[in-house]
Amino acid sequence: MVPGRVVRWLEDWMPVLKVLAVLWLVLALLMVVPLVVLLFEQDPDARAFALSILIVLSASLFSLWACWRMPVELKTQQMFVLTSLSWVTISGFASLPLVLGAPQLSLTNAVFESVSAITTTGSTILVGIENLSDGLKLWRGLMQWLGGIGIIVMGIAILPFLKVGGMRLFQTESSDWSDKVMPRTGGIAKATLSVYTVGTLGATLAYWLGGMLPLDAIVHAMSSVSTGGFANSDASFGAYSDQPQLLWMATFFMLCGALPFVLFIRSLRGSPLALWRDEQVRGLIVMLVLVVGAITLYRIWRGEVPFTSLTHTAFNVVSVVTTTGYASDDYTLWGPFATMAFFYLTFVGGCSGSTSGGMKIFRFQVAIKMLISQLRFLIHTQGVFVSRYNGMPLTDEVTRGVVAFSLFFFLTIAGLALALALLGLDLVTALTGAMTAVTNVGPGMGDIIGPSGNFAPLPDSAKWLLCVGMLMGRLEILTVLVLLTPMFWRK
Amino acid sequence: MVPGRVVRWLEDWMPVLKVLAVLWLVLALLMVVPLVVLLFEQDPDARAFALSILIVLSASLFSLWACWRMPVELKTQQMFVLTSLSWVTISGFASLPLVLGAPQLSLTNAVFESVSAITTTGSTILVGIENLSDGLKLWRGLMQWLGGIGIIVMGIAILPFLKVGGMRLFQTESSDWSDKVMPRTGGIAKATLSVYTVGTLGATLAYWLGGMLPLDAIVHAMSSVSTGGFANSDASFGAYSDQPQLLWMATFFMLCGALPFVLFIRSLRGSPLALWRDEQVRGLIVMLVLVVGAITLYRIWRGEVPFTSLTHTAFNVVSVVTTTGYASDDYTLWGPFATMAFFYLTFVGGCSGSTSGGMKIFRFQVAIKMLISQLRFLIHTQGVFVSRYNGMPLTDEVTRGVVAFSLFFFLTIAGLALALALLGLDLVTALTGAMTAVTNVGPGMGDIIGPSGNFAPLPDSAKWLLCVGMLMGRLEILTVLVLLTPMFWRK
Repeated sequence: MVPGRVVRWLEDWMPVLKVLAVLWLVLALLMVVPLVVLLFEQDPDARAFALSILIVLSASLFSLWACWRMPVELKTQQMFVLTSLSWVTISGFASLPLVLGAPQLSLTNAVFESVSAITTTGSTILVGIENLSDGLKLWRGLMQWLGGIGIIVMGIAILPFLKVGGMRLFQTESSDWSDKVMPRTGGIAKATLSVYTVGTLGATLAYWLGGMLPLDAIVHAMSSVSTGGFANSDASFGAYSDQPQLLWMATFFMLCGALPFVLFIRSLRGSPLALWRDEQVRGLIVMLVLVVGAITLYRIWRGEVPFTSLTHTAFNVVSVVTTTGYASDDYTLWGPFATMAFFYLTFVGGCSGSTSGGMKIFRFQVAIKMLISQLRFLIHTQGVFVSRYNGMPLTDEVTRGVVAFSLFFFLTIAGLALALALLGLDLVTALTGAMTAVTNVGPGMGDIIGPSGNFAPLPDSAKWLLCVGMLMGRLEILTVLVLLTPMFWRK
Repeated sequence: MVPGRVVRWLEDWMPVLKVLAVLWLVLALLMVVPLVVLLFEQDPDARAFALSILIVLSASLFSLWACWRMPVELKTQQMFVLTSLSWVTISGFASLPLVLGAPQLSLTNAVFESVSAITTTGSTILVGIENLSDGLKLWRGLMQWLGGIGIIVMGIAILPFLKVGGMRLFQTESSDWSDKVMPRTGGIAKATLSVYTVGTLGATLAYWLGGMLPLDAIVHAMSSVSTGGFANSDASFGAYSDQPQLLWMATFFMLCGALPFVLFIRSLRGSPLALWRDEQVRGLIVMLVLVVGAITLYRIWRGEVPFTSLTHTAFNVVSVVTTTGYASDDYTLWGPFATMAFFYLTFVGGCSGSTSGGMKIFRFQVAIKMLISQLRFLIHTQGVFVSRYNGMPLTDEVTRGVVAFSLFFFLTIAGLALALALLGLDLVTALTGAMTAVTNVGPGMGDIIGPSGNFAPLPDSAKWLLCVGMLMGRLEILTVLVLLTPMFWRK
């Protein structure tokens, strides 16, 4: 006899396991791609992928078998748990080929690399990336690509429903997650996946025509469109630093990855101006033009070559703002103004509903509107001022959500940086390491983790903390924090 | 014939000038103290003070003569202007003896020193402070002392009325500023001045008994109680680093300076527990105990001597949190965790209604309450949650004010740091320089402006920017920002 409590517990959590199992299945299928390549090239790494697939597939199929009869109708509580668990478990499983395969990474390094990949952060602990097997290069790209589509779907379908961080602003008819509306959500998801795939293919073609080798074109396309930032060289995109056509192409594709994917779909379905009409998109582009202009002028004033300055400034600014994290050059050597600007840009992030991380441009816009109305309030003591965003009135709920998110965001970074300092990291490394992890950008600052550095020399404990930071950033922080409150677990 | 517009303009602004003139008169009277000392010691610097008094007195008396018949009844607009102008003009006039007297400072350096003094920041550009005349040492202390009482009165009587940064929380019957209620505000101001004076005398006596020379005791008493931080030595309070009794006394007096002065008065008037019952005071003390404990343990773990560690940790933590800015030691050499902690502590500040700067402890408490209620909201979608502060419900107006203030605070620091970087300052100097100025703490970090450093090597332009930062911080930012909006000047 199974007691009632256990039955209820199973009824609550089996549907979550069922969804997870489906996601693991997708992961296992993706692993087949590098496996085929490696088998074709007769590379012994094929064994590592075969074994990984076996493990992931077993876990998935066993769970599916156990939960097959469970209807998937998730309540808020389960959705919070599912969201966090999906990223954690997929990152864990995705690290298997790195442990079992050629680079023989330690568990810490392998998990760091896969968390960094799946969260589309792009920080790496690998040295000698050029010498990895083609299968592993491909796998690093595929993990980022999977993380990219994952975050878009989460941004469209889950976060607005959970009311995390003012995301209600983007609530649409697709923001429901039960059997009833699955077809509609499924439709959006399918359209998004198509746009994302076509975009990746387009980027691959462009990079290939621009001069990259086919495998490099594929991997860079996947890590551009997903705003992930993994490259096939220790020099990151610096391997192509003298090929401006590739830098500009990458700038374009990173920017595309940072735009709301729903708007691409809307543009294709008959509202060609949907992108430009969006306040968030316009804000991002105007900001980028201003910042790139300012830093380029500063560099020309310091005596650098105008066109090269513009190319590399545009590339690296877009790379950091979209939270891709490619580096074509060590921008911390461009003078203090540029360094400070990049320090700030780490926070910005792209648009909501895109693959990029950071605080997201709409939160800055909402904050600015709140500040303006607050100044008004100080001057005209009486009177109510309603701000609007994208034509809709900014409710107190949204503003409060945005503000609370921003504070939690800073607190997470501050706490993480303090913990990293306790482990012995210096001020700049600890602070920018925490920032770059939580914003999912990639490179930090300072000698160790700067744009020309590598995360390998950090102590293992620091790497685990950074993994937590990357996952919290990717999950918009509150999704995770909620799980840590006793309130959440009370009935 | 004077046209009507001019008459109306005069009617608006003559009352402001009248109040300013009274404040200048106070400044001139204070200058008499060092003058007398210098005359007594037959120091040629006496001339500089005599001349300065002549200039300030002329400006004051001329203005008083011109505005004598104007009734002082200030509207919001005038109060904003008066608040900013009083700090700017007093800092300007107070710098005169530094230009005319022995150190022969350039205008930039003199203004930097006097703004740093009056805003009770305590950053200095002077080298060889030991060799200054007694009169000038005294003047540096007096400027800080004046700035200290100025900010308390402003915090009690003006800011709550202007609704700046959630200060409505502290609105009392004395928060009115017109002829009608002058007697009551005057009463509070007089009581505050008495407590402040008695506290300073007590500190002087304690320091003297503790082993300081009389002049040093007086100056350090003034810069402790005002949480200013000027010392009579290039080594700051490090000159007494081997006299723990003095360090603990200073810790106590700095802490007193960071408590709400109204509560001292209330304690003396029959509610002896008023201080401890206050949520802000308790929060500050609990926080200090925790932070001092953590850093002390960290230092002991690193192998330092327990009692010395505790003494210097308590002294320097209290010094930074109260925004005094004395240093007894270079705390940036205490290991990365301590450095990071001090980096954060720069922001905190003491209590509202005290002499300290920074963001103020109540804003952190209000923010934490908001974050908790936001987490609740995420979990229980329905339901309204009202937080309370010091027994009063936290209205949306207060929360919004606090949040807007915090954002403006960070934006001001960020903008200032970017401007400093443009002038060539490195990342750490620019960032911590901007922070320490706007929070009115004193020392920054890095080789130049760190706890054992000096602001003299910075370029002149950077010093002027830091002056703006110190004044904006002291005026709670919004008081100044409001003046920069076109809205404010429209009728």
